Amino acid sequence: MTYCIGIKTKEGIIVASDSRTNAGFDNVNIYSKMFTYDVGDRTIIIVTSGNLGTSQAVYKSIEKDLNDKNVIKNLNTCEDFDQVAKYVGGLNIKHSSPKGINTDTVLLGSTFIVGGQIKGQPMELFLVYPQGNYIKPADSKPYLVIGEVKYGKPILDRVITPDVSIGDASRCALISMDSTLKSDLTVGPPIDFVVYKKDELKITSQKCLNLNDKEFSKVSGEWSEGILKIFNSFPRFDWEK
Amino acid sequence: MTYCIGIKTKEGIIVASDSRTNAGFDNVNIYSKMFTYDVGDRTIIIVTSGNLGTSQAVYKSIEKDLNDKNVIKNLNTCEDFDQVAKYVGGLNIKHSSPKGINTDTVLLGSTFIVGGQIKGQPMELFLVYPQGNYIKPADSKPYLVIGEVKYGKPILDRVITPDVSIGDASRCALISMDSTLKSDLTVGPPIDFVVYKKDELKITSQKCLNLNDKEFSKVSGEWSEGILKIFNSFPRFDWEK
Repeated sequence: MTYCIGIKTKEGIIVASDSRTNAGFDNVNIYSKMFTYDVGDRTIIIVTSGNLGTSQAVYKSIEKDLNDKNVIKNLNTCEDFDQVAKYVGGLNIKHSSPKGINTDTVLLGSTFIVGGQIKGQPMELFLVYPQGNYIKPADSKPYLVIGEVKYGKPILDRVITPDVSIGDASRCALISMDSTLKSDLTVGPPIDFVVYKKDELKITSQKCLNLNDKEFSKVSGEWSEGILKIFNSFPRFDWEK
Repeated sequence: MTYCIGIKTKEGIIVASDSRTNAGFDNVNIYSKMFTYDVGDRTIIIVTSGNLGTSQAVYKSIEKDLNDKNVIKNLNTCEDFDQVAKYVGGLNIKHSSPKGINTDTVLLGSTFIVGGQIKGQPMELFLVYPQGNYIKPADSKPYLVIGEVKYGKPILDRVITPDVSIGDASRCALISMDSTLKSDLTVGPPIDFVVYKKDELKITSQKCLNLNDKEFSKVSGEWSEGILKIFNSFPRFDWEK
């Protein structure tokens, strides 16, 4: 399984993904699920959950198309993020429905979060489905999650508002990821973590965080301590001594 | 769907359940999922998730058996909590496999959390499966959850330790319930909430909490405020201004 988060704040976009893959409980591995591209007038960040073969084939095709001078559509020729999402969706369908495979019994689909900015256009964040179609997050809850989405959702629902700062959104993404890591063995480190600030047209910060890395362990540790402080300050029930 | 929590602390047991039932998205209703019994030498608290017909039939059978003087096994004749769990498991199997129904296509099973104490014995907490067998929670994580268990798990994993106080465990149960209510529409109020203190042999506190009830809204509100305070006190990233 997998857990990926994309958050769109007014100041920028945050994207995070875990690295654990498993083909059965006894076949666990580590692969990056993130693809980043910031060249020229555009910054594009993609993360994926679902069938690893399909996800890797899509990333490979994206790279191949970027290096192919005769290709009509690639990340550089897309005029806007709708076209980027449609392009990723098309590759997703292509690689998840190979001829001769019974796709009724084997799940080959993948899901993607695609975010970033093209010069002169607004920042965008899309969720691309295995069927190739895509959605934007609601303005009132400007985040998207894919994979094992339930454990980390409550903290996002409490903190991510349209006016959240990019710093708080980043810390919230790390806590959401940490909560999922702690409660679900199929989601694991390291965490690929990218911050893109609006109109910079290049990635502001890109890190591969392990549990003991300063940035991650500080947020995770202060969160755990902070929670206990809240518990200490709660009013007591009548039946408590 | 449903969300129920049972926590066993050194000082006592906490059990909470939501009240939303749905037979399809457009057929939503409110039913209590809790059964309590504190008569004589024993206090028994039961909550349930799964097929509502089966759950209600089990509760009905428990009551019928209590009033039947010729019955061999009921909640009063069980010698210990293993027998209580086995008895509930037996009723569960009986009511979830009626003759003439194709149970391959219709899911009739229910799951139960059974907790409490019989005089002179230790407090107990069990999870009874649709198959009738049952487990205890691990000593290191003394809680059980059934139904929509993922949203509310991270806070339990961070707060519920073998040494947690019964007050903190109660507040944690309410926050875990609140997180699930906020993130999942299939879990809804009111919340049946029971506290049993060790060796009291009667229920210490039993409430049916609505969202605007003082006890629930205070914990939920202070939690939301406390979280934002933690966010304000976090160290900043290098890339933040």
